[in-house]
Amino acid sequence: MKIGGRWRRTIEESGSAVIVLDQTELPHQIAWTALATLDQACTAIRDMTVRGAPLIGATAAWGVALAVAENIDLDAACAKLAATRPTAINLAWALAEMQRGLARVEGSARLAAARKLAARICDDDVATCQAIGNHGVELLRAIHATTNKPVNVLTHCNAGWLATVDWGTALSPVYRAFEDGIPVHVWVDETRPRNQGLLTAFELAQHGVPYTVLADNAGGHYLQRGQVDLCIVGTDRTTRTGDVCNKIGTYLKALAAHDNGVPFYVAAPSSSIDWTLSSGKDIPIEERSADEVRKIRGVDIMLPGTPVANPAFDVTPARLVTAIITERGVAAPDRLLSLFPERA
Amino acid sequence: MKIGGRWRRTIEESGSAVIVLDQTELPHQIAWTALATLDQACTAIRDMTVRGAPLIGATAAWGVALAVAENIDLDAACAKLAATRPTAINLAWALAEMQRGLARVEGSARLAAARKLAARICDDDVATCQAIGNHGVELLRAIHATTNKPVNVLTHCNAGWLATVDWGTALSPVYRAFEDGIPVHVWVDETRPRNQGLLTAFELAQHGVPYTVLADNAGGHYLQRGQVDLCIVGTDRTTRTGDVCNKIGTYLKALAAHDNGVPFYVAAPSSSIDWTLSSGKDIPIEERSADEVRKIRGVDIMLPGTPVANPAFDVTPARLVTAIITERGVAAPDRLLSLFPERA
Repeated sequence: MKIGGRWRRTIEESGSAVIVLDQTELPHQIAWTALATLDQACTAIRDMTVRGAPLIGATAAWGVALAVAENIDLDAACAKLAATRPTAINLAWALAEMQRGLARVEGSARLAAARKLAARICDDDVATCQAIGNHGVELLRAIHATTNKPVNVLTHCNAGWLATVDWGTALSPVYRAFEDGIPVHVWVDETRPRNQGLLTAFELAQHGVPYTVLADNAGGHYLQRGQVDLCIVGTDRTTRTGDVCNKIGTYLKALAAHDNGVPFYVAAPSSSIDWTLSSGKDIPIEERSADEVRKIRGVDIMLPGTPVANPAFDVTPARLVTAIITERGVAAPDRLLSLFPERA
Repeated sequence: MKIGGRWRRTIEESGSAVIVLDQTELPHQIAWTALATLDQACTAIRDMTVRGAPLIGATAAWGVALAVAENIDLDAACAKLAATRPTAINLAWALAEMQRGLARVEGSARLAAARKLAARICDDDVATCQAIGNHGVELLRAIHATTNKPVNVLTHCNAGWLATVDWGTALSPVYRAFEDGIPVHVWVDETRPRNQGLLTAFELAQHGVPYTVLADNAGGHYLQRGQVDLCIVGTDRTTRTGDVCNKIGTYLKALAAHDNGVPFYVAAPSSSIDWTLSSGKDIPIEERSADEVRKIRGVDIMLPGTPVANPAFDVTPARLVTAIITERGVAAPDRLLSLFPERA
């Protein structure tokens, strides 16, 4: 997507390293950071220099390639990367892809193969996100055809360009609508505690898409007032039964959408579907540092030592999800297997 | 309640003025501000030096008394105070009480009568809140009798001591339980954008009640996991039909409580019930400054000019409310008139 008017990816090859856009500094500063080692890749994922399930997967793939260059054992490297964050399944998916791809490549050919495979995972992510946009835009087009007004989309967290290599998942249909001339406006949840909504605001602003930021508390009010046509969110892990794990607070918006008869869509590349799980209750929920809640931009907003809990994700049960938008098309949450029959 | 170990009210007479605890500085600083004029009382309400529906009413009553001392016309003073904030009905209620009480008092007797009446409104608020605590504590006692574990209460915003003259509305049953030796723990919603949850955290800490602060997004997750026994919130205006207007985001928690079979209670002194309204849709919702969302403690957390909407309240429909706790007892939202038959 465009940043400073120029089309960029969130992760790009740069010599023997990769560079990533530092998302902890956005929107206040646009800074690129080089990742040259496995450890740097692990830290970037853990500290959320990069975040968003698909981008975590892409960065992990590059982390493996960097480990190969350092002559680090493949299994050890994958174990280290897998331990950085527990919830997003794309991480495990990308590591499995790398291990499978490199299993029979030994010696001096391994580095080139690893870099090629990591680059392919990134390219595939872009294609997947574009396909999600192509399928999802029809949902917005149909609403616009009925109302002939700007389509109001509510989204939570950031599942846009910045959460992927390019285009985004939840925001890909929005960008596609914008490109197609369908008028669109996005209600952007702030998404405490880490305020990823400001990443969404940043990338929408960079691309020229109209938006309004809301405190997380406010979305229900606009749903009640008929000012939201549809919700679209991303996912860190979706079960084969369509239970959706996503950023904490997603469940509350799904409840409000359901209560007001507003469709609630989840944009899920197949890399974020965990085919081994039949219930969202089995998804591990990351508990992050209390200081993420206590401080904003380094400023104490609470007294030091204030008791705080900070679960990073919640699970929206399939019954609250209208449909899931994948790279193969749109399906009701209990019909995911119709799009991926090979997983039956 | 206790502050620094000493029992105080949020608003106290001090010579010819009143002093109020400055809630914009809490929890970082404990500062008392004198209100000596009508204008100072209006500013204190508008800028949220004082906030919370009952305390807004009490401060408005004192504002009238201060206006009388300044020889300002009673109707003009009430109009000025009424315009400070639109949603909390206690404001209009207190002004009507003052106007009724002073209607037939003229000349030199008026000032003493105004001060006496304002003081009585404050005393009545304390008694009302204590009665709410006495009724509400039985709900906690019954849960504890069943589980024999600490009772987990979720609350939103601040409807404690700081929102009233003393004791609070939603927190009054919690304090009463604590005094009675019923073990209790409070999940405190941060309550963006103004973070009144930190006021709740502050007053619970001052009194020694265990609590944990949560981002507003997190409450649904704990409700799903069975870690909340009941929700109690306050209200800025409740209709005769039991639709509850309260701090923005209350509706989302009510939905989540309902979805998980957890009771959702509203503590409502009768001064917060608008007997003229039959639908929550008719309650005016205050839209506050975008900078309340853009800045925290003076620090820009968003880029200046970021488009923001900031509705301060939402309406929880009666169907999501288990019961309303008033000074006269507990009733289902559609049975409020059984407690107040004179309003039928």
